[in-house]
Amino acid sequence: MSTTETHTTTFSARLDLQWTASIRPGLLHAHPDDLPSLLGPRDWSSRRLPIIDEHVHAIYGEQIRALLARYGIDHPDPLVLPGGESAKTADTVERIHRYMETHGVPRFAEPLLVWGGGVAHDVAGYAAATYRRGVPYITFATTLVSAIDAMFALKVAINSQYKNRVGSYHPPATAYADPAFFSTLDRGQILDGTGEILKIAIALDGGLFPVLEQHGPRAVAEHFQGRDPATLAILHRSVSAMGEELSNNPFEHDPQRASYAGHGISPGMEPEVSHGVAVALDLLVTTMIAWRRGAVATPYRDRIVRLAHALGLPLWHPVLERPQVLFDALIDTARHRGGRQRIPAPVHEPGRVRYLDGIDLAELHRALNDLHHAASHDRARRTQWTSTTGE
Amino acid sequence: MSTTETHTTTFSARLDLQWTASIRPGLLHAHPDDLPSLLGPRDWSSRRLPIIDEHVHAIYGEQIRALLARYGIDHPDPLVLPGGESAKTADTVERIHRYMETHGVPRFAEPLLVWGGGVAHDVAGYAAATYRRGVPYITFATTLVSAIDAMFALKVAINSQYKNRVGSYHPPATAYADPAFFSTLDRGQILDGTGEILKIAIALDGGLFPVLEQHGPRAVAEHFQGRDPATLAILHRSVSAMGEELSNNPFEHDPQRASYAGHGISPGMEPEVSHGVAVALDLLVTTMIAWRRGAVATPYRDRIVRLAHALGLPLWHPVLERPQVLFDALIDTARHRGGRQRIPAPVHEPGRVRYLDGIDLAELHRALNDLHHAASHDRARRTQWTSTTGE
Ligand SMILES: NC(=O)c1ccc[n+]([C@@H]2O[C@H](COP(=O)([O-])OP(=O)(O)OC[C@H]3O[C@@H](n4cnc5c(N)ncnc54)[C@H](O)[C@@H]3O)[C@@H](O)[C@H]2O)c1
Ligand SMILES: NC(=O)c1ccc[n+]([C@@H]2O[C@H](COP(=O)([O-])OP(=O)(O)OC[C@H]3O[C@@H](n4cnc5c(N)ncnc54)[C@H](O)[C@@H]3O)[C@@H](O)[C@H]2O)c1
Repeated sequence: MSTTETHTTTFSARLDLQWTASIRPGLLHAHPDDLPSLLGPRDWSSRRLPIIDEHVHAIYGEQIRALLARYGIDHPDPLVLPGGESAKTADTVERIHRYMETHGVPRFAEPLLVWGGGVAHDVAGYAAATYRRGVPYITFATTLVSAIDAMFALKVAINSQYKNRVGSYHPPATAYADPAFFSTLDRGQILDGTGEILKIAIALDGGLFPVLEQHGPRAVAEHFQGRDPATLAILHRSVSAMGEELSNNPFEHDPQRASYAGHGISPGMEPEVSHGVAVALDLLVTTMIAWRRGAVATPYRDRIVRLAHALGLPLWHPVLERPQVLFDALIDTARHRGGRQRIPAPVHEPGRVRYLDGIDLAELHRALNDLHHAASHDRARRTQWTSTTGE
Repeated sequence: MSTTETHTTTFSARLDLQWTASIRPGLLHAHPDDLPSLLGPRDWSSRRLPIIDEHVHAIYGEQIRALLARYGIDHPDPLVLPGGESAKTADTVERIHRYMETHGVPRFAEPLLVWGGGVAHDVAGYAAATYRRGVPYITFATTLVSAIDAMFALKVAINSQYKNRVGSYHPPATAYADPAFFSTLDRGQILDGTGEILKIAIALDGGLFPVLEQHGPRAVAEHFQGRDPATLAILHRSVSAMGEELSNNPFEHDPQRASYAGHGISPGMEPEVSHGVAVALDLLVTTMIAWRRGAVATPYRDRIVRLAHALGLPLWHPVLERPQVLFDALIDTARHRGGRQRIPAPVHEPGRVRYLDGIDLAELHRALNDLHHAASHDRARRTQWTSTTGE
């Protein structure tokens, strides 16, 4: 082939995205006089399509309709969708696409209003990402997990054979959370978010760790309803830490990322264990590996175990008796990270990680034994713990 | 709601993409000694998953396998997919996802090798975009349409109720086209690409217009097999013009885009009329509107009509007898462009456009009548035309 016949054109494309996330107590009572921008710009259209998680709709549907009415929003009947992992499917995406198609949603002017937890964010976000190659959406997080993680996520996804195997990048135009919603979450859902908060304190924001040690158990017990500075600080610091982390590596081109802490073997524990709790268990297993490798000293190791327990997180679960399944999850994780494990693990002190590679089945096994041992010790001291954590 | 309780975090994400597209006569005979990078970097893996259009597989399958063997590529049986618009479905995407899942394709190290036309690009590109939130792919364009448009496109899509309604942005890592493949395309497929080339000459690269007037009819008749400078120039200029246009507005945030010329009402002509031919007919209708509005003088209008005809493109089709359907397509187009039509139309001279708005059914009707009139005139002169264009 002659080179004079060959002709190469270089293409380039730059995408600059900017969006915000707010923790806003009292959001449901917002009024356009105080907060005119809440539902997005109105220059082209004052119509919006509301997409609402079914439990949220059952409890807060009236208040959401009243909010839309106060804002003079023209809207069809909301699309009410199930929550829960099993709703994150191609079928749900198709339902959302049909809803948009029925109402002729334009490319730019009518952000979807999405009320719900992480599932609503992920599935409606993915539907928004792929409809007309991307229509805007605004998330209103109603779960703790979503408030501190999903609601502002650039990543949107559905499950196929594996969790989140199919997805895209499409952040919301804006994300809001009102802790008042968390009052109606069950304790398991609160713990789910707490697992992620623990991850943030271990891997991203070391300063959050002592705040959690001091105020976490109470905040968790109160479902974060206290509008006291410590409770709000836990939420604010969590969002800020996740925001900084996300801005450093938004498209995951760097497979080495502190926020992946707790996400290496945890996929192998789901769905038996809910996500945030699986993250916490993964963090504990990883802590044991790091401790055996000498990266974490015993006192820090014990502080982590103690904090997890004080927050009400389990230190053990029968799912940890299947090391092969967990190891398979690790293999898939490595595939997603360019062929290497790159497991962020605690090192020295809160807020710092070191990336571990080459974890084999035997090492995983030993870590599980170490954790089991620590957990049994803990069970023996349970009475003492519960009295100090106010559980 | 008190503002001290509210806490807002700003997120930002920048994506910088760069990729190349090459017209490379002789590609199928490439050798790693001359062109080591053809199938992507090998540092992490020398395995690749080949995805091949079924007609391409039937004709060129052996040669593609030989190429992979010369490059020492480890690969499973290729996934052979149908071409044609009806293959651009969620089902095909699922087949591709399953193929990737079966072979455990990692996020970064094994670009899919996609051989085929625009359908292969769009459907495999969309499957690649959404698998693990984006795995790389390399396109090998085997149709004229793909070589000058689809193969390097950032836009990937499938059809749902409407064409390309579901999609994303995910450019190939690299795109290659070898005109040798066009020898086995039928005349309709060549005309399809020719319609897009006409668009480029009218809306993007005015210098291409006289080249097309002089050499286009022969290049089309020869299926672009001549390796002469004029034939290659038509291909090279087309890719360059599209590349510049794309780099100016990669994510279509600017709904006013010269390359949208011919794409306003054409969706209403498909699938009865193939895409590129619909684009050409749309350009002709738009030319008539611009002429009536005084933006295009009669001589330029006639040059456009003459060139379309000389290239073998039809000047009329029964589908143009359904103005309401075409008008509905225009309404949907406007929805995609932030509520306004913004139809790029010829103005003054080749390579320039003006954006038209407010086209109503009556004006569309008149333009169709004008075109019908010009086409009938032309039919009367057909004998003369065919003798000069060598048809
Ligand atoms: N995209 C990301 O980066 C990201 C980050 C974190 C989590 N996630 C995803 O988020 C999902 C988990 O989020 P989740 O825990 O919020 O799940 P979820 O959205 O399914 O909500 C959990 C349950 O709570 C119900 N619910 C929601 N709000 C309620 C309220 N205020 N009161 C009572 N019930 C309510 C829901 O109906 C559901 O049954 C997972 O699929 C995970 O993958 C994504
Ligand atoms: N993403 C974009 O920006 C973009 C740009 C242009 C076109 N497109 C899309 O591309 C599609 C049209 O592309 P196309 O015309 O290449 O369609 P195609 O891929 O369906 O190919 C047309 C036909 O030719 C066959 N074929 C392919 N190569 C051949 C060869 N070398 N010899 C013999 N037969 C061959 C195919 O099997 C098919 O039957 C449309 O769906 C359109 O939306 C996308």
